[in-house]
Amino acid sequence: MFRATVLTLYPEMFPGTLGLSLAGRALETDTWALEAVQIRDFATDRHRTVDDTPAGGGAGMVMRADVLARAIDHASPVSDPRPRLLMSPRGKPLTQEKVRDLAAGPGAVILCGRFEGVDQRLIEARGLEEVSVGDFILSGGEPAALVLLDAVVRLLPGVMGNEASGDEESFENGLLEHPHYTRPQEWEGRAIPDVLVSGNHKKIAAWRRAEAEKLTAERRPDLLARPDKPAT
Amino acid sequence: MFRATVLTLYPEMFPGTLGLSLAGRALETDTWALEAVQIRDFATDRHRTVDDTPAGGGAGMVMRADVLARAIDHASPVSDPRPRLLMSPRGKPLTQEKVRDLAAGPGAVILCGRFEGVDQRLIEARGLEEVSVGDFILSGGEPAALVLLDAVVRLLPGVMGNEASGDEESFENGLLEHPHYTRPQEWEGRAIPDVLVSGNHKKIAAWRRAEAEKLTAERRPDLLARPDKPAT
Repeated sequence: MFRATVLTLYPEMFPGTLGLSLAGRALETDTWALEAVQIRDFATDRHRTVDDTPAGGGAGMVMRADVLARAIDHASPVSDPRPRLLMSPRGKPLTQEKVRDLAAGPGAVILCGRFEGVDQRLIEARGLEEVSVGDFILSGGEPAALVLLDAVVRLLPGVMGNEASGDEESFENGLLEHPHYTRPQEWEGRAIPDVLVSGNHKKIAAWRRAEAEKLTAERRPDLLARPDKPAT
Repeated sequence: MFRATVLTLYPEMFPGTLGLSLAGRALETDTWALEAVQIRDFATDRHRTVDDTPAGGGAGMVMRADVLARAIDHASPVSDPRPRLLMSPRGKPLTQEKVRDLAAGPGAVILCGRFEGVDQRLIEARGLEEVSVGDFILSGGEPAALVLLDAVVRLLPGVMGNEASGDEESFENGLLEHPHYTRPQEWEGRAIPDVLVSGNHKKIAAWRRAEAEKLTAERRPDLLARPDKPAT
């Protein structure tokens, strides 16, 4: 079973969106497990302090290596085979390929950073893998952890009702997805493209492929340029 | 006041993470407002249907243009100055620059897609701007909307306790952020780098800049190659 442990100053943010819909049903049926650990429980002073001012000066606060290490070592002993992730804008951008790798594994230990960041020595000493969900700054790692786990959980066996649905979507073939249409046939004077109601499956597949390629070239030429793009 | 309206099949996912911490306190003090609208309330049949099978065949279901249009027109009349966003992996990747633009505006109307996607005619007829939080697939747009709003709300005036903190972080200057350290001075045999405890502010600034450049070159050479990178 895929086991996620989230280390956070806001355990009440979990399961959050993951307690509903696909992920929520999968949680109820023990398809995966989620544990949120309060980092503050591993502070040792009366004020339960988890942060301190940055060495060298500057704005904000930095999360302490010693407190975080105690939380990690409690949640994930040395023998734990799960990868240890740190949600951070400094990390490697999350990709669908990484999501698939995580979904195929035993789970993940996810540290949610807050404030200016986390003491660098902790990242090195505990082998944390920094993962980013995008080139923007969040108030903390928690919303990013929810996004990462949502992407992973939907790929776990039995979670998606329609297994076929997972394969044709954006990024699974290195292209953005083609446009979709459904009834009504005409809406506000706009009709569904003729080819889609032609019944000619070969033409439909060709149209969708061409639309996906056109959209990707327009919006994300960077995807077409990737060396790891699957052969088409 | 920044007003966010989220159109979703899971209004109970909101405010979620946005009800706590920085964003939650800002919500309580009316620094911003959040409304979650149940799309299903705009269905017209007995079963409150919001989706139908894809024209041209294929897996999954597509959200209907007519139902979504009624929800959007209710939540955001023609005179509404707020941008209308659709969270979608087909969209333009969210950047900190876009986050800043949104935070400077009147708010946002955010449609959360589910299933295979949304009828393309709705996207065109209602001028929806597709926004992606990354190259991976979520179970729906809701976790992405939480991420987008988290990034925006922290930039609203008065939300961050320490205003200075917003300027030095990753992406605000086109670089990943330098490593952070804090007390204890020595931890598990690892010391804070000497320069940071030297008291020499010029040397500290130079070290941080060099570390940020090195990290960016290692992990994200794509950021250095951006034509829109600010002059350094």
